[in-house]
This record gives sequence, C-alpha cells and structure tokens, in this order.
Amino acid sequence: MSKVAVLGAGSWGTALSIVLADNGHDVRLWTHRKEQAEIINSTHKNEKYLEIMVPEQIKAFSNLEEAIDDVTAIVLVVPSKAIREVCSELNKVQKNKPTLIHASKGIEPGSLKRVSQVISEEMDAYSEEDIVVLSGPSHAEEVGKRQPTTVTVSSLNMSNAEIAQDLFINENFRVYTSPDIIGIELGGALKNIIALGAGISDGLGYGDNAKAALITRGLAEITRLGASLGANPLTFLGLPGVGDLIVTCTSVHSRNWRAGNLLGKGKKLDTVLEQMGMVVEGVRTAKAAYQFAEEQGIEMPITNGIHQILFEDMQPKDVVEQLMSRTKKEEMNDLAILISTNYGK
Amino acid sequence: MSKVAVLGAGSWGTALSIVLADNGHDVRLWTHRKEQAEIINSTHKNEKYLEIMVPEQIKAFSNLEEAIDDVTAIVLVVPSKAIREVCSELNKVQKNKPTLIHASKGIEPGSLKRVSQVISEEMDAYSEEDIVVLSGPSHAEEVGKRQPTTVTVSSLNMSNAEIAQDLFINENFRVYTSPDIIGIELGGALKNIIALGAGISDGLGYGDNAKAALITRGLAEITRLGASLGANPLTFLGLPGVGDLIVTCTSVHSRNWRAGNLLGKGKKLDTVLEQMGMVVEGVRTAKAAYQFAEEQGIEMPITNGIHQILFEDMQPKDVVEQLMSRTKKEEMNDLAILISTNYGK
Repeated sequence: MSKVAVLGAGSWGTALSIVLADNGHDVRLWTHRKEQAEIINSTHKNEKYLEIMVPEQIKAFSNLEEAIDDVTAIVLVVPSKAIREVCSELNKVQKNKPTLIHASKGIEPGSLKRVSQVISEEMDAYSEEDIVVLSGPSHAEEVGKRQPTTVTVSSLNMSNAEIAQDLFINENFRVYTSPDIIGIELGGALKNIIALGAGISDGLGYGDNAKAALITRGLAEITRLGASLGANPLTFLGLPGVGDLIVTCTSVHSRNWRAGNLLGKGKKLDTVLEQMGMVVEGVRTAKAAYQFAEEQGIEMPITNGIHQILFEDMQPKDVVEQLMSRTKKEEMNDLAILISTNYGK
Repeated sequence: MSKVAVLGAGSWGTALSIVLADNGHDVRLWTHRKEQAEIINSTHKNEKYLEIMVPEQIKAFSNLEEAIDDVTAIVLVVPSKAIREVCSELNKVQKNKPTLIHASKGIEPGSLKRVSQVISEEMDAYSEEDIVVLSGPSHAEEVGKRQPTTVTVSSLNMSNAEIAQDLFINENFRVYTSPDIIGIELGGALKNIIALGAGISDGLGYGDNAKAALITRGLAEITRLGASLGANPLTFLGLPGVGDLIVTCTSVHSRNWRAGNLLGKGKKLDTVLEQMGMVVEGVRTAKAAYQFAEEQGIEMPITNGIHQILFEDMQPKDVVEQLMSRTKKEEMNDLAILISTNYGK
C-alpha cells in the first residue's frame, strides 16, 4: 500500500483516485478549490464531474503542500493549460522525489511542447526521463463504475513506467507499458482534434460512414504529424491511438465530440465554449497542430478544415465538401511510406 | 453511361445499384426471387432491406441470363455462402467478359478461400487477376440516402480496379484504389468477428472503454492473421480495416453487432440466428478464422473467445474475464514486429 497524491479533482482525476483506492492505496486528492475539497470530504461525492460515491479512503485537500506530504507518487491530472502553473507551485513545496505520473492530454500552443516536457521545465528535481504518462481509451464515468478499461503507461525510463503500472493495475483496469512516451502523449492530444471533427460530422447530420472515413483519414494525418515530432507511428495503432480515437469519436461522453457537435449544428466557437463550461482540449490542440503543420509543410487536410471552422469563420458544410472533392487517389500510400521509413529508427 | 448488372438485391446490392443509377448507368438488379423482382419493378421499393425509393432506371430481374445480357460490368453482392452457387449459374449463361466486381465479405470455412478465389474457381472465363473487390466502411442505409461514404476497390490487375473506381465514384461516394486485394478481402471478412465481439461486450452491459480495447486488440489479431495469409498489414490501417471495423462495431445498423448483442444478453446462437432472419457473416468467418489460427499456431485470443461463445457453450462473462486477466505486457510488440517483418515484401 502506498500513499499517492492525485492533483486535479475533475472527472478523470476522481476516477483515477477511485482505481488507486480500490487497490488499497491511501489517496490524497487535491483541488485548488477549498469548497470542492470540503464537499468531497463531507459527502464523498464529486457530483459536478462523476455521479458515483468516492471511497472514504480518498481524502480531499486544497492545500498542495499537505496533499503531497510524504507521498511516494504524484498523479497530475489538470487541464493541459494549467500544467505550468500547477507545476510551478508544486516545485516550491515538493521535498522528496516521488514518482511523477501525468494523465493530461494536450500540446502547448506556441512552443508545441508535450506535457512531460513542460513538467520537467517547471520542476527542478525532475528531468524528462523521470516522468510517466498514463493514457488510453477511458471515459472517467466508466472507470468510476469499475467497467473493463485498458490504458498504457510510458516513460523514457521504463522502470518508472513499471512503478505506475503496479500502482494502477487491477482486474477492471488493465495497464500496458510502452517505450514510446512521445507517441503516447501526442496520440492522446491529437486525437481530440479528430474528435471535434467527428462531432462536427454528426452535428451536420452525416452518418457512420462519413464518421468512419473521417476517423480513419484523421488517424493517418495525426500519425504523420506525430512521426515528424519523433513518435513511433506504430504507437498510433494501439490503445493510445486507434483505441482512444474510437472512444472519443463515437461517444456522447466526450466533451470534444460534444463541442464539435454544437459547431456542426451551426453554433460559433465562443458560444460553444461558454455552453460547455468545461475545458475543450481539442480546440487548443487544433491550433497548435495547425501551426506546426503549416511551419513544417505537413499535409493535414482534416486539421486544416477544423482550423477553418474554429478560427476562420468557415461553414462546416463547405469544409466537408472541400474534403470530399479531393482528387481520387490510392489509399494508404502516405501511411505506408511513413511507417516504412520510420520503423526501426 | 454503361449497362451494369448487380447480382443480389439485399440492402448492399440495392444501395450500390442506387450509386450506379445516380451516375447515369443503366442498372439491372438481379434477385433469385421472382416476387421480389416484380415488387421492385412495380413499386420502386425494396422495403425489406432499404426504406428508400429505388430510381426508375434500375430494372429488377429474376432471370440471370436476361439480367447480364450485353452488360459491361457485373457487380456480385450475394452472401458469401451463396457465391459458389451463383457463380456456377453465371458461368453457364455468361457470354462476353464484362468487368467482374464483387462486394461480398467472407471466407469459406474449410478451404479458407477468399471470395475472389472462389469466383475464379467457378468461372471459366475469369482468373483471379480479372476480379475486383469493393469494400469499406459503408452502411447500405446511408449510401441509399446519399450520405458521404468512402470505399476502396482493388484487383491484382489495377486497370480493372480503375474501371470499377470510374463506375462508382461520385460526390457522395468516394472511391480509393489499393493494390492489396488479399488485405481488402480479408479485412472486410475478419472485421465481422470483432463486430460480434463488440456486440457481445455491449450486450453484457460493458461500456465504450471495453469496446475500444476490444476493437484495438481485435485489429491487431486480424492483422496478424491477414498477414499470415499474404495481406499487407498496412491495409488493415486504412478504410477497409480500421474504418470498416469502426463502422461495424459502433453502430446498431450492423447485423453482426446485433447478433453479438443478443449473444451478450445470454441468448444461444440458434435462437439469435433465427431471430435475425438475415445472414450473419461473422459467425461463419469466426469458424474459418479459428480453424486457420489453430492449424497455424497464430495467437488470436479474441477470436478464440468468440468461438467459445458461439460453438463451445461458454458464458460471455467468463470469456471476458479470461481476456482481461491475461498477463500484463508491453503493448504493440506483436503488431510492430509484424509490420517490420512484412513491410516491403
């Protein structure tokens, strides 16, 4: 039994706390909102996010220093845009060097840095190889209900990934390891762009055929971008790629899909974000990916189309027509070339 | 404008006839049931299969010789178990050598032959390289409604594939070509096994996380089997693989998913097949794939589990527990090794 701090009490942080508690660990769930911590401790519920009881061995904290006192592992589950700020605070109060696992999905616009890179920049005691990512096809709601779920953990130093695997694995929550942290982090982030696209397609009233085509072609283009940033393209075929893409694109649970759905129905981005009241990682990631693709000359027609809808005031219907009317060509050439030239690097 | 015969007036045959009619071709839709042909010609509907009007330029026939008279292309869309019989009839009446395209998904149990192999065995005038396959993520209902859809055509002789591409392509129906007919045929057939599994998972009450894991791991194992039968594993990452898998596994339209769903709810195979009243290709394909995997020593835990449910009277819940409790291991190793050793063959 270990003492573990989970930083971030949204739906995913709460669900991961429940997995750790089920495994007998002493869980300290941190939120920056004092009121939320008090409600969790008094009612054992975190209703805004998860409609499920939080086991009593999960204690909520709003003081960061208290939350991480004497823990052997820290699990960081805050929205990607809050990573720098939370890590900068953490850096001030952190004493020993617990295993640091993150489960956030995003890329920093401007710098195009992955979450583990941002963390290591903000934390004096940690280099990139100290950090572990946990990612995979996993709606928090289902994890909270102990439904079968699979995720992948990865670190440049595999022994850290194995520590994370041992902390989380149980009969409902199967944890694989992978050596490709770049691919795992990028897969988790970039899939949110395609989830926006899937929501837009559904919002326009198109069917499963259109959505399956979008997901498949979307997979090819995020793999292309990932490989150009150093990921192993094969990672995108596994749970953190195809798997996560399927779960995010075909479920009404997904907030990225929901945001896309409203866009497809003709709402403007500002209205959508206001109506959601939650972070929509895909919007931020689409901006970052578009910027990188433009700079590097990488062909990303779907990301480009989504960027047009989000930031260039283009109508979703016109974007779809533009995508469908691209010249006929051989399928898979691009992905095939990519994998053949990258595999074995 | 060409004269094209479509053999098989189920939902997919009817939908493909509509695409051809929309492209201005003279379509001759053949069914072995005289009454069905008469109803289509008099009402311009084929209600048992598709709730949509059939354009008047589609003429239904129940006489095979009349249906194929003077056509430049034949599109074969009968259930895979009827392929030998229909081709044997066709062989007797066929005169010129029209382009032969098939859109059937299955593997012959016992022989483990693909549809194009079976066709060329039964038709004197055609060798394997004369035959084209059309496959992809495509519910017939949506194609009938002119919703955006993408498919792939393939032939050992690419000029035949290009003839098929030109016949079918239009603004709603995007047609790619691929040189890997083995992969396209196997992808379309084997994905039905995983669709049964997805239905079973949903029928058991599991969520999207479990289903995404099943689809992802299922993709790895059907790719493994496909490669051992000569397919390019990369084909399984495209529209006829990932794309078709997504559409079949996440939609209530799919009859394989529906059959699996009933199995997951505890019904026995006989009852399910009776209740469906339609062909469930996945059942036949699961038997063929299981047999091949056993003979060749290929690891296919999901197919094996589905075979246990279908033919060995094992409870779905016990099969899932068996799958979830497999030892923890690195993800993707198997697929990675496969692609690296096969690519460039």
